Amino acid sequence: MSVIYSRVALIGLGLIAGSMAHAMRRHGLAGEIVGTARSPESRDIAREIGLCDRVTDTAAEAVEGADLVVLAVPVGAMGRVAAEIAPHLGAGATVTDVGSVKRDVIGAVGPHLPKGVHFIPGHPLAGTEHSGPRAGFAELFENRYTLLTPVEGSDQKAVERLRALWQGMGAIVEDMEAEHHDLVLAVTSHTPHLIAYTMVGVADHLRRVTESEVIKYSAAGFRDFTRIAASDPTMWRDVFLTNKEAVLDILGRFTEELFVLQRAIRMGDGDVLHEYFTRTRAIRRGIIEAGQDTSAPDFGRVKAKRDDNGE
Amino acid sequence: MSVIYSRVALIGLGLIAGSMAHAMRRHGLAGEIVGTARSPESRDIAREIGLCDRVTDTAAEAVEGADLVVLAVPVGAMGRVAAEIAPHLGAGATVTDVGSVKRDVIGAVGPHLPKGVHFIPGHPLAGTEHSGPRAGFAELFENRYTLLTPVEGSDQKAVERLRALWQGMGAIVEDMEAEHHDLVLAVTSHTPHLIAYTMVGVADHLRRVTESEVIKYSAAGFRDFTRIAASDPTMWRDVFLTNKEAVLDILGRFTEELFVLQRAIRMGDGDVLHEYFTRTRAIRRGIIEAGQDTSAPDFGRVKAKRDDNGE
Repeated sequence: MSVIYSRVALIGLGLIAGSMAHAMRRHGLAGEIVGTARSPESRDIAREIGLCDRVTDTAAEAVEGADLVVLAVPVGAMGRVAAEIAPHLGAGATVTDVGSVKRDVIGAVGPHLPKGVHFIPGHPLAGTEHSGPRAGFAELFENRYTLLTPVEGSDQKAVERLRALWQGMGAIVEDMEAEHHDLVLAVTSHTPHLIAYTMVGVADHLRRVTESEVIKYSAAGFRDFTRIAASDPTMWRDVFLTNKEAVLDILGRFTEELFVLQRAIRMGDGDVLHEYFTRTRAIRRGIIEAGQDTSAPDFGRVKAKRDDNGE
Repeated sequence: MSVIYSRVALIGLGLIAGSMAHAMRRHGLAGEIVGTARSPESRDIAREIGLCDRVTDTAAEAVEGADLVVLAVPVGAMGRVAAEIAPHLGAGATVTDVGSVKRDVIGAVGPHLPKGVHFIPGHPLAGTEHSGPRAGFAELFENRYTLLTPVEGSDQKAVERLRALWQGMGAIVEDMEAEHHDLVLAVTSHTPHLIAYTMVGVADHLRRVTESEVIKYSAAGFRDFTRIAASDPTMWRDVFLTNKEAVLDILGRFTEELFVLQRAIRMGDGDVLHEYFTRTRAIRRGIIEAGQDTSAPDFGRVKAKRDDNGE
């Protein structure tokens, strides 16, 4: 493929930005990749592993001369970073982000950006439970959705250019309205994460079931929860604080449903349980048919070929 | 390896029994494998794919002359099957089961078995979301735990023989007291399954977020829940009805914890969330160190080599 942006600035060097660096390099999508992170340790690691062409000490330096700036910091830090880089952005540059919440980010970032800069919020629906500059890998976005939530008056050419970048990294790109994005993600991601964190917390508290037993026997289902609940704490704290309304809405529905099933267990009402469990199978089938997972046995957990990114 | 039982009768031909058939055959652990299932369709499929050496129409026929009988039916059907086979069991035969609940099964099966028959309850902690006679595969138990919960007065030689069978199929075998088993599994398996079923049910109900969106964007976390919630409805109904006490206990704790986090979100208390999410990471690390999962990225979901068992 050909170069889409001559200089890309990655602000924050975690899993997503790191994977973008690998993917852009592999596919030749960026002329130069400049990166920065708030923590000196992350910057040192990024330099050591050659993650970017250049690592700067500040975000202001990183964005100098960049035609694409990617905000890849926790959602709660987006506003501060936008304020910091705003005076250094070139005219015609595009600023995007990769945050898991869109309405809050638009409100926090938008007002800081000068006229002539294109702001196109985005969200790649991809991740692992790993974080930090060593966690990225070039294939992370392949066959995964990236949602763009252009704001009022977004320049269509700038949107198409950003779309081409994500497509170049293997993503399926779709546009979505920001508020709808936040609701969809509350259902498909945010609430499941909160529930997984909670279940792992319960297991951690239980003294009758020793920690070692919980760990040993995790393959029975709990393992899926611990995988989700190992994700970056700062990122997730910010997600819940900034997508509060939608998450509380879905959580309320979740609790109602849970109480229906809990009551059925208490009353010994097997029919309610059986009917419920039968219905949920259909969704799973849809996901496999949509190509967003494999139907392979052993929970698809045959050891990955690529395992050099482990903790 | 050498033959451990000269004739093994598998009652029920789902994922577990089918995987046992494949594994016993691969490792030469059984002289003859006889199987039966209540549904004529399952028996036909088993005959068609040659799952067992012989498929009988009734459980009574299947156990004739068997030195090991494996009850691999839903927990709620164990008592009925035990009553049916009891008159046909040979002296010195071992009866085991693979149910996910142990106290209830012991109460349901034990009283039916004649003197001279060894009853050794068991539970392989392995599974996928697939079910039926086509779902099994020989590697299912490899490096997974199988728990034996011998009852008062179990013959030690019979226990060691059964242990050797499971070890021959690749399992790590441990003994556990039945009541403790039911509590450990309520934490590591039963409650996580109920929660996953609930979350998938919530998503299914939501009309504002169309089904197709939930499915398309599932990779963001929800996918793990749908995988769990696609498990066999009859099996899981029985698990919840028979391990009611422990599941309700853990569910109560879960709801308490969830409300703490929900309140923190509502009040905007980021410290509570961050502290909680940081703590849950440690458990995940322990599971990887215990070899019960891989730390590979992409959620370990690189397409499995073996995918001929898909739905």
